[in-house]
Amino acid sequence: MSTLIDTLRRIVGAPHVLTDGDLSAWELDWRRRERGKALAVVRPGNTGEVAAVVRACAAAGTAIVPQGGNTGLAVGSTPDLSGTQVVLSLTRMAAVRALDRDNLTMTVEAGCILQNVQDAADKAGLLFPLSLAAEGSCTIGGNLGTNAGGTQVVRYGNARDLCLGLEVVTPQGEVWNGLKGLRKDNTGYDLRNLFIGSEGTLGIITAATLKLYPKPAAQLTAWAAVPSMEHAVALLGLAHQHLGAGLTGFEVMGRFALGLVHKHMPQLRVPFIDQEDVPYGVLLENSDSESEDHARARFEALLETAFEAGCVTDAVVAENLTQAHNLWHIRESIPLAQAEEGLNIKHDISVPISRIPAFVEYADAMMAREIPGVRLVNFGHLGDGNLHYNVQAPVDGDPKVFLREQEENVNHLVYEAVAQFGGSFSAEHGIGALKVDKLEKYQSPTALAMMRAIKAALDPQGIMNPGRVLGTAPAMPAAPAN
Amino acid sequence: MSTLIDTLRRIVGAPHVLTDGDLSAWELDWRRRERGKALAVVRPGNTGEVAAVVRACAAAGTAIVPQGGNTGLAVGSTPDLSGTQVVLSLTRMAAVRALDRDNLTMTVEAGCILQNVQDAADKAGLLFPLSLAAEGSCTIGGNLGTNAGGTQVVRYGNARDLCLGLEVVTPQGEVWNGLKGLRKDNTGYDLRNLFIGSEGTLGIITAATLKLYPKPAAQLTAWAAVPSMEHAVALLGLAHQHLGAGLTGFEVMGRFALGLVHKHMPQLRVPFIDQEDVPYGVLLENSDSESEDHARARFEALLETAFEAGCVTDAVVAENLTQAHNLWHIRESIPLAQAEEGLNIKHDISVPISRIPAFVEYADAMMAREIPGVRLVNFGHLGDGNLHYNVQAPVDGDPKVFLREQEENVNHLVYEAVAQFGGSFSAEHGIGALKVDKLEKYQSPTALAMMRAIKAALDPQGIMNPGRVLGTAPAMPAAPAN
Repeated sequence: MSTLIDTLRRIVGAPHVLTDGDLSAWELDWRRRERGKALAVVRPGNTGEVAAVVRACAAAGTAIVPQGGNTGLAVGSTPDLSGTQVVLSLTRMAAVRALDRDNLTMTVEAGCILQNVQDAADKAGLLFPLSLAAEGSCTIGGNLGTNAGGTQVVRYGNARDLCLGLEVVTPQGEVWNGLKGLRKDNTGYDLRNLFIGSEGTLGIITAATLKLYPKPAAQLTAWAAVPSMEHAVALLGLAHQHLGAGLTGFEVMGRFALGLVHKHMPQLRVPFIDQEDVPYGVLLENSDSESEDHARARFEALLETAFEAGCVTDAVVAENLTQAHNLWHIRESIPLAQAEEGLNIKHDISVPISRIPAFVEYADAMMAREIPGVRLVNFGHLGDGNLHYNVQAPVDGDPKVFLREQEENVNHLVYEAVAQFGGSFSAEHGIGALKVDKLEKYQSPTALAMMRAIKAALDPQGIMNPGRVLGTAPAMPAAPAN
Repeated sequence: MSTLIDTLRRIVGAPHVLTDGDLSAWELDWRRRERGKALAVVRPGNTGEVAAVVRACAAAGTAIVPQGGNTGLAVGSTPDLSGTQVVLSLTRMAAVRALDRDNLTMTVEAGCILQNVQDAADKAGLLFPLSLAAEGSCTIGGNLGTNAGGTQVVRYGNARDLCLGLEVVTPQGEVWNGLKGLRKDNTGYDLRNLFIGSEGTLGIITAATLKLYPKPAAQLTAWAAVPSMEHAVALLGLAHQHLGAGLTGFEVMGRFALGLVHKHMPQLRVPFIDQEDVPYGVLLENSDSESEDHARARFEALLETAFEAGCVTDAVVAENLTQAHNLWHIRESIPLAQAEEGLNIKHDISVPISRIPAFVEYADAMMAREIPGVRLVNFGHLGDGNLHYNVQAPVDGDPKVFLREQEENVNHLVYEAVAQFGGSFSAEHGIGALKVDKLEKYQSPTALAMMRAIKAALDPQGIMNPGRVLGTAPAMPAAPAN
């Protein structure tokens, strides 16, 4: 393979082809559960170099694993153990190419860190609303490759809804420039959305034109104590009605999840944690195009109606930005508090919002019955029907043993329940290598057959991130030169 | 072919297979420019029948032309002249299958007329925001098949943005049920968006789960006189900033277009038509989740700022629903007024909003130079960068001769200008049979190659609406039975 490595060095420059030393940053997945072995890590500096790298790899029949910030939760951006896959890291391609204020768009390269995208918009007095826990490390290319979700989906949609166009290097090493930045363009099949969420298995996103929004004049956060999941769903309905598009966040958190934050981060003051009869907390965010006073008046009108309807038993509206940040910090500390409590099994599921209460009631009872002592860390983006229905080992016993013995069974129980309620076993994290078998099991065979046909049509050589999403066969040798 | 007809009669019942008599309703396109000849018009009553019809046609190697309300503007839903294509009309499948209030979704069959979809949402106190001129006749299946746009795209997006899931019959006659109604579901490639906008060339949409929104508490309409297209774009920016998501409509209309309405429909009182120095009118719509008073106050604050900035020289806010309807009626009467004036050449183009003023200045001057006396009927959805930049024959001479001699040239001039400004020659109307050659010319060859690969992968027999979008070869005979 030294010929390929030499070629790659010629294309991107020797310092940007890494083959020795500690390559953990590229070979180890974010949750540190899987470590692969790369043939090389290649770091091209522009789209032309990406295309040349792909052509070289295609000629050699070598598989390519595209990688952004490597913060994915489904092991989609690290190489397998074979030592034959090239990791193509986009992080050197981090430029903001253009910001068009009148068109409300920004064109950025794939390796641009999400927070930098947000900041560039902010500096122009505009908003790029994609927001998620990893935003300081993840890249916009990875966000689009996995169709990331996050906390503002209830208003602005997923990553796909925030993208107007892509630049993509195909598995043949050609460049498709689809960066027109048009809000209406019905000229053939929707390739943009096909690449978004394909996790690098159909080509490599090298740049994107993103939608920007006017920055709200004010943003307010509230925390409500709600007496049941039914009431949380009813509160969501009232919030849609009262706030319209002002509703930019709606997160639910179960009492046990909040208890873990209270226990492990006592400095964070979890609202209403002393009220033992409060099973759920809801975090609401209201963005207002008018003023803070107006936002506050709207919030108060909503909460008053919700009190009267019995959906809310207590509530607090943040008085200032610090208080608002604190409330969000509690929400975002749940995963860390969970980790402090010990090993756990994570899920990222969705069901129709209307079925969430019945799903939770069913799943809670079923889990308690099937695995006595199990503890459920239930929280998530209720506004999108997306729960992180996580499972913590029982207090007694060794959590490592629990995970080893029960992880498959727990996943099976949760995913079967999700399927029964018409939901998805992967709402926002994607498939990667981690859930290939689940996709096979729960996706419709007709849909799977179409996906396989598309993969074979666009990447007949099978070199783009093989084994991810569809678990296709390993890369085939290149066809003889012609 | 009598065997196929017999089979189709067995599947859907003889009364629903039409072969004789006047089939104009299915064979003649909406603008009455192209008349085809169908082998038969088949009207299945449910998804199972659609699948059986497709299997029968596939076995016979017979091409299928899916059709909804047959209101498309790009000749995508009528058969060719060969007499060998089966028109598969979805209009009997018009049920609203379910409305889920808490999930804010509605599942409807493809043949449901758009207005009926809107009405069903309305009856439930909710909003389905897709709105366009043909809404009394077009079907939701056609809207999705062509990714229809319309007047509320600035807030709610195109048809694709309003759809959470599809039921599709594949070219092999299998049924894919993707109607989960989830707002987050990252389980493989985005087949939904691939079918949306594919104009029946990849499969047949038989049902869809649509997004609903809370109904605004108030909706106000204003009409502003603006001194230039630059000022119209600046007004759009101010409207985004002041109204946020309240801005649900932003239409621009050139003076000549409004003059035609004034001339041919004098009973419609076009605002500011007597002010000769007003080159453009802008129609704005503000939807408010609070109250009419609040909507009015917000509108007035916006217009005050716009006056001060010189973006608006005069304005009127509708005092009641009747006045609002009248203002919209003027906008919607432009195509009819154009027709009254005589034959014309229609375009449906988009460029980035920021480039609209320069595009219009360039195109207006170029057209005046190239075709002396030409009259430009320029109006459209400025909020989406989408103009209907139509061309009316000069006053002197025979318009029929003008069209015959100049249509190709006019299209060429306009589309070349659009390409130069980074735009699209088909913003919301699609490709159909009408613009196949334009797609070939203006779409990127890399993108076209991917589209062709996808078409061949999903419809290897080439029986789904052949010759549309990609202008593929006619249907091939079926493979021998195995």
